[in-house]
Amino acid sequence: MIKIAITIGDPSGIGSEITAKALSKKFDGVLPIVIGNYDVLADGIRIAKADLKINKIDNVDDAVCDEKTINLIEVFEDFDIKKLEYGKVQKQSGMLAGKAIEKAIKLALDNEVDATVTAPINKESFKLAGYPYPGHTEMFAKLTNTKDYSMILAHGNLRVAHVTTHVSMKKAIELITKENVLKTIKVAHHACLSLGIKSPKIGVCGLNAHAGENGLFGDEEIKYINPAVEQAKLEGINAFGAISADTIFSKALAKMYDCVVVMYHDQGHIPIKQMGFTLNEKGEWTEVKGVNITFGLPIIRVSVDHGTAFGKAGKGTANDNSLINAIEVASVLVKNKGAC
Amino acid sequence: MIKIAITIGDPSGIGSEITAKALSKKFDGVLPIVIGNYDVLADGIRIAKADLKINKIDNVDDAVCDEKTINLIEVFEDFDIKKLEYGKVQKQSGMLAGKAIEKAIKLALDNEVDATVTAPINKESFKLAGYPYPGHTEMFAKLTNTKDYSMILAHGNLRVAHVTTHVSMKKAIELITKENVLKTIKVAHHACLSLGIKSPKIGVCGLNAHAGENGLFGDEEIKYINPAVEQAKLEGINAFGAISADTIFSKALAKMYDCVVVMYHDQGHIPIKQMGFTLNEKGEWTEVKGVNITFGLPIIRVSVDHGTAFGKAGKGTANDNSLINAIEVASVLVKNKGAC
Repeated sequence: MIKIAITIGDPSGIGSEITAKALSKKFDGVLPIVIGNYDVLADGIRIAKADLKINKIDNVDDAVCDEKTINLIEVFEDFDIKKLEYGKVQKQSGMLAGKAIEKAIKLALDNEVDATVTAPINKESFKLAGYPYPGHTEMFAKLTNTKDYSMILAHGNLRVAHVTTHVSMKKAIELITKENVLKTIKVAHHACLSLGIKSPKIGVCGLNAHAGENGLFGDEEIKYINPAVEQAKLEGINAFGAISADTIFSKALAKMYDCVVVMYHDQGHIPIKQMGFTLNEKGEWTEVKGVNITFGLPIIRVSVDHGTAFGKAGKGTANDNSLINAIEVASVLVKNKGAC
Repeated sequence: MIKIAITIGDPSGIGSEITAKALSKKFDGVLPIVIGNYDVLADGIRIAKADLKINKIDNVDDAVCDEKTINLIEVFEDFDIKKLEYGKVQKQSGMLAGKAIEKAIKLALDNEVDATVTAPINKESFKLAGYPYPGHTEMFAKLTNTKDYSMILAHGNLRVAHVTTHVSMKKAIELITKENVLKTIKVAHHACLSLGIKSPKIGVCGLNAHAGENGLFGDEEIKYINPAVEQAKLEGINAFGAISADTIFSKALAKMYDCVVVMYHDQGHIPIKQMGFTLNEKGEWTEVKGVNITFGLPIIRVSVDHGTAFGKAGKGTANDNSLINAIEVASVLVKNKGAC
C-alpha cells in the first residue's frame, strides 16, 4: 500500500470538509493518513455529511485499511474547537495548519509515509501563529533543507513549469536568461519522467506576442529562449520552441507536448485555471481541478491548486476534486519513484 | 435582409473552401454576398463538396436569396486559376485578396452592404502584390480614414479587448498608462453595447501576477490600472479591477464580466484560443472558433480568428466554424447599430 500523509490545512477553511469528502472515495492501493486534529476532522465529516469514523493513531503502522475509516494522527490536541470560526483568520488555526505540515514532512523524511498531500492554508493565520513562511512550498524547502525546487501545475494532460512566478512582469523579463530557461526545461523533463511519461516532449513558450515573430516584437526568444532549447536538445531532451504562447496550450492539450515551460506566472496560470476552475453565475466556484507538484524536494509533495475558500467554509458546498487529483497524482509519483 | 459582403481571402489558403462550407448553411435574415473570383469560388465549392451554384452579379441588388446559390461579385476576372497553387505564396493570390477587400469596404461605405466579413489573407502574398498593409485591420483603417480603432476577440460569452497587441512585452509594459487603459475600457464598453449587451460589466486584468498583490509584485496596477478603472466608473461605466488574470477568465465564462480588458497580446489570446482552437494528435487543427471584431471603423467588420492554413488548403478538411461565427456576429452588430 502507498501511504500518503494528508495535512488538514487551515481548519477555518474548507480543508476538513474536502478531506472528509475525498476520503469517502476509495483510492486503489493507497492508504491515506490525515494529519490534523480529532475535533476538526469530526466537524469536517459532519459538514461533508460523510459516513466515516475516525481511527486516531500514534503511528502510521496502526493505520487500518477500511473504506469507512479515516486514519488520523493528531498534532494539536489542545485545539479549541469551540473557538473555531469558519472563514476567520485565527491564530490557533494557523498553529494547527503549521503543526500538521511539520509532522507530515517528518513522516516523509523518516520514510514512514511515501508521499505528502497538502490542503490549503491561510497566509495570515499562518503568520499569526508565528510561522515565517509565505507558503507551503517555502516551508517544505526549509524543513527538508532544499535550495533548488520548482513547481509544476497539472490538470489532466496539461502540465506547466514556470521560469518565474511571484515577481513583477518587469522583474520576470529580467530573470529570463538562457540558464534559467534551461533549468526549467530540465525540471519539466524530470517531472514528466517522475509522472511515468517516457521520452517526454517539452514545449517552450516565447515571452513576447507570436514568440517575438523573429525579433519583430522583442528579442528574448532569440537571445535566451531559443539557445536554451538548443542546449536542452544537445543534452538529450526532446525540447521544442520558442513557440507562440497563444497556440501552445491547444497543442499541449492535443498531446503534442507533455509539459509546457512558461516564462511568467500568468502565462501558465491562465490556461491551467481556465481549464480547471469554473464558477456559477453567483460567482461561486463550482469546480476546482488541477494540482500543484513541488519538484526538487527529497520527498514527494502534491498540493491542491486552490485556497482555503473562507467564503465557502463550513457550508458543505466545497468541491473535493482537486484534493482527489492530488492524492491520485501523489500515488503515480510514488509508483514512478526512481524513474529519473 | 441584412446584406453581408464576405471577402474570399487568399485563394491559396482555405478561404474559398470555408466560404463554400459556411454558405451551405442558412443564416436567418442574412443575405451573404461573396467578393472574389468565379473560378476560385467554383474550386472552393468543389473542394468543399458543396451543393451550390454561383450567381455572378454586378450589383448587390441583383443578389438572390436562395439556399443553393452563392451570390458573387467578381473583382479580378483575369485571375489565372491554372496557376493557382494551394499552400503557396503567390502574387496573383495577394492581388485577388486585396481587390476583394477594397471592393467590400467600398460597398460598405456606400451603404450597399450592412457589414463586411473577412476570410484570412497571407501577409507575404499581400506584400508581393504591392499592398503595403501588415494586415486587414490597417487596410480597413486606411481605406475608411480611421485613426482610432481597436480589436475585440470573442468566443461565445468570452470577449477580450487589448490595451496593447503586436509589440514586445517590454514595450507593452511601457504602453500601460491610465489613458490607454481607460481608452480600452471605453472600447470594451461600447463594443458590448454594439453587441446588444445592456449595462455591460467590464473586468479589467492586472498586468502582474496576482494583479500585483497590493504592490508586492509590481505597481502598474496601483499607478495606472486601478485609477483608469476608477475614472471609468466616474464616467458611468460598470468597470471592475484590477483583477488577477489567472481567475478573471473563469469569472467571465461564468458571466460575471461581459468583456475583459487585457494588458498584452497573450493575456487575451491564450484564453480565447485555448477555448476555441483544438487539434488532433497529428497536430491538425480540428476546431477553430472565435472571431475578431474591429471597432472604431465607420463600417462593420468581423473577421475569422485564424490564418490561411496553407498546410490544409485544397484538401477539403478545413473547418468553417469561425467564419460561421463571424457572419452571425456581423448580423448581431447590424441589428444593434446605433445602440452606442
